[in-house]
Amino acid sequence: MSAYDSLCELAREISLINSTGSVLGWDQETYMPDKGLNHRARQLSYLSGRAHVLATGKKFRTTLEKAEKEKRALDSKEAANIRVMREELERAIRIPTKLVEEESTVTTHAKAAWMDARKKSEFPLFAPHLDKLLGIARKKADLWGYEDEPYDALLAGYERGAKTREVAKLFTSLKPELTEIARAAVERSKRVPENILRGKYPIAKQQQLNREVAESIGFDFDGGRIDTTTHPFCTTLGAGDVRLTTRYDESDFTSSLFGVMHEAGHGMYEQGLPLDDYGLPSGTAVSLGIHESQSRLWENHVGRSRVFWKKWLPRAAELFPNLRKLTLDKFLAGVNRAEFSFIRVEADEATYDLHILLRFEIERRMVSGELKVADVPTAWNEEFKSLFGLTPPDDRRGCLQDIHWSMGGLGYFATYTLGNLNGAQLFSTAMKQRKIGDAAAKAEYAPLLVWLRDKVHAKGSTLLPRELMRVATGRETQPKWHLGHLRTRFLSC
Amino acid sequence: MSAYDSLCELAREISLINSTGSVLGWDQETYMPDKGLNHRARQLSYLSGRAHVLATGKKFRTTLEKAEKEKRALDSKEAANIRVMREELERAIRIPTKLVEEESTVTTHAKAAWMDARKKSEFPLFAPHLDKLLGIARKKADLWGYEDEPYDALLAGYERGAKTREVAKLFTSLKPELTEIARAAVERSKRVPENILRGKYPIAKQQQLNREVAESIGFDFDGGRIDTTTHPFCTTLGAGDVRLTTRYDESDFTSSLFGVMHEAGHGMYEQGLPLDDYGLPSGTAVSLGIHESQSRLWENHVGRSRVFWKKWLPRAAELFPNLRKLTLDKFLAGVNRAEFSFIRVEADEATYDLHILLRFEIERRMVSGELKVADVPTAWNEEFKSLFGLTPPDDRRGCLQDIHWSMGGLGYFATYTLGNLNGAQLFSTAMKQRKIGDAAAKAEYAPLLVWLRDKVHAKGSTLLPRELMRVATGRETQPKWHLGHLRTRFLSC
Repeated sequence: MSAYDSLCELAREISLINSTGSVLGWDQETYMPDKGLNHRARQLSYLSGRAHVLATGKKFRTTLEKAEKEKRALDSKEAANIRVMREELERAIRIPTKLVEEESTVTTHAKAAWMDARKKSEFPLFAPHLDKLLGIARKKADLWGYEDEPYDALLAGYERGAKTREVAKLFTSLKPELTEIARAAVERSKRVPENILRGKYPIAKQQQLNREVAESIGFDFDGGRIDTTTHPFCTTLGAGDVRLTTRYDESDFTSSLFGVMHEAGHGMYEQGLPLDDYGLPSGTAVSLGIHESQSRLWENHVGRSRVFWKKWLPRAAELFPNLRKLTLDKFLAGVNRAEFSFIRVEADEATYDLHILLRFEIERRMVSGELKVADVPTAWNEEFKSLFGLTPPDDRRGCLQDIHWSMGGLGYFATYTLGNLNGAQLFSTAMKQRKIGDAAAKAEYAPLLVWLRDKVHAKGSTLLPRELMRVATGRETQPKWHLGHLRTRFLSC
Repeated sequence: MSAYDSLCELAREISLINSTGSVLGWDQETYMPDKGLNHRARQLSYLSGRAHVLATGKKFRTTLEKAEKEKRALDSKEAANIRVMREELERAIRIPTKLVEEESTVTTHAKAAWMDARKKSEFPLFAPHLDKLLGIARKKADLWGYEDEPYDALLAGYERGAKTREVAKLFTSLKPELTEIARAAVERSKRVPENILRGKYPIAKQQQLNREVAESIGFDFDGGRIDTTTHPFCTTLGAGDVRLTTRYDESDFTSSLFGVMHEAGHGMYEQGLPLDDYGLPSGTAVSLGIHESQSRLWENHVGRSRVFWKKWLPRAAELFPNLRKLTLDKFLAGVNRAEFSFIRVEADEATYDLHILLRFEIERRMVSGELKVADVPTAWNEEFKSLFGLTPPDDRRGCLQDIHWSMGGLGYFATYTLGNLNGAQLFSTAMKQRKIGDAAAKAEYAPLLVWLRDKVHAKGSTLLPRELMRVATGRETQPKWHLGHLRTRFLSC
């Protein structure tokens, strides 16, 4: 047996433990009764401890070293797997167990404090926790090392190979036109009544439609399912087992439907990863920015398009009689109604990225030390006013709205907009192929999925996100396709 | 830290792994999509391997030895925990890993073969697998050791401290009167139309009633839940997390309701175990025969009684209008209708134990070598004819009906009837207490549950089943209360 084969065996063992943790995590979010929480926390901490020991232990390290010395082509899948495992090992071993434990304790308390602070809309209740988390994040960045600024090290944890400077440049180039489109879209949408899609949509019928749609775009229910949670997500519990969740609003079926299309986009990426490489980098999604490109592509480029609803509105109207009064035009105006609002997760496509630009800026300044935690609310509200022309009435609808910081997730937000840019770029490239475009014009997306499987899913983590984008679309991530898409969707008629 | 404390820490670690396996097993039965099976099997086998290594490893063995040398009172909880851990270690280390693996492979194939054989009603398709499983069971019995006959060693795996000879004696003393009661009950039930309870019972309303009933008898939904599976079961996923399952028949609501009361009986036992001792013998149910006493007690003694339905029939009739035409007498006649039938899991209370007596006899003769596998169908049908006066029309409705043998579960069946005897004996003892009896007469069961918590649940595995019965009821397990109960229920009016 080669050292590489032994290395893969170890990696698969670690992934077996981690995927077991995913089953436990999924159950905790979906079905676990309240009193199960303490024991569940112990089970999860035991598993992550075991996985950490294996992933940083001597056996793994020496096997990796031996595998690195074996001869193989630099551009082979095997070489890519070894490179990624080295990268992950270096990140893992530089963080002392004490810091891991400290972070775990701090986030447990920070999450509780954040929920309380958000409820009461009192930032000072959360501030000392954010301060601690920021300290830990900076310490980790120092231990990991970085080129330009500590934020680099945090960002790279979510987006392999990304540099803060480059993301900032991308976002800066995006901002003026994005702001202009958002304002114009909001202005135009004032013609559309806010409650145009309101009605009575029984949950069982929403579930029926969601399933039909998810199936039709290619989500495989023999290897997955949909459950209900407060916060929708997609998680992989093992090879061949991808779970989506959604939530239902009985007065608006599009909320769960677009949620399901979004999560199904994530899910189809997971289902398209090479099954035989499960547990290895080549069988693992490469980054959040690529993952989000898949969810946004299916939710927005497919799901909110005219061709899609030309096919699906009649079916929806069969299930929901109150839709029968709406023309396709009116329905689409409702689906794509833009408005400046305070909450990111409720934002429409035209204004969403402005929420991200704001967070990226605030986070970067916090991590560099330029912005003190105590000054976050003021900075947030000023930047919000400048972008949206509105001031959040309280911190609950301002800097306290997102869970990410309370979980130590500094450096995460940028990947949402990277996902939007990547999604638009991939979709536009695919549509240029006659067969894909012709099918999509009839709301048939099998050829599109085949293309995504080939260009994105099948690659696993063998390419860096930037490389993957270059190979798939000819260019690294750029704003022009996303801006073009928004302009067409919101300003063209 | 004492050796005993270290031992408990190890035991809790093992139980953390095993309970993780329970989460995975529950998910597999309830929600896992088909394609997740292979990976799930790998996760489960990894976990059971880890648990086995820890439970039989040097660290556990030497810690146990040290703990055994520490001074403590023989009748203390600590001494009981050490005794049970020694017992379990001895059973575990005597079985070589090779045999464990062989059994796992054989049962995987045997289960598939059994399903096929049952479908086609062709015993020869299953016979060679049963032969292999019997060989393994005998080998295990030899490795474990036994006093009188190999069946002892198998039985003790399900019922601590039980002896085949004693169970046989109990069953022999039970048989004549049981047969007589069963015949008389079946004869009387001929007056009751077979379809007396048939109707239309929507699943959502059944779920509503099941939950109300389970809550009212004391099942804690903050620490548990009910899901749907083909084969109902109860499983504990961790301290404070007990899951029940049931199945629904839309034409007969009593099928899921009594199923839920049965599983809730198991569940309340689990919920009543000392929480702080989770993972130790003192926090673990003692045997299947005691477990089944709890499920039968709530399902039959409580659930099929007149006082219970005096209270609950009006509520059921609110949910299910077609019940309004039935008097309490007619309804009870339907609930307690006895009939000779071929399938054990569908059998009524009056005839159920005859199915068990038959299986115990056949199993015991198989294990001793007196009965050849090829002759099982003939022996089964002859014995069935003598007990029930009927001959199974095919092996699907005869010796192929149960899953137990295909899973290697030889020695299991006896615990069902032990459970019936124990349940009747415990119920009758409790009812003699004025407070419990008075409350039960008004269909209030909180005092009964308090008594069961104290006499049964709180004991964990610190007493042998026979000792537990003696302490709780003054006697070891005897048939008279069960027979008395059946006579009252089926022959008294």
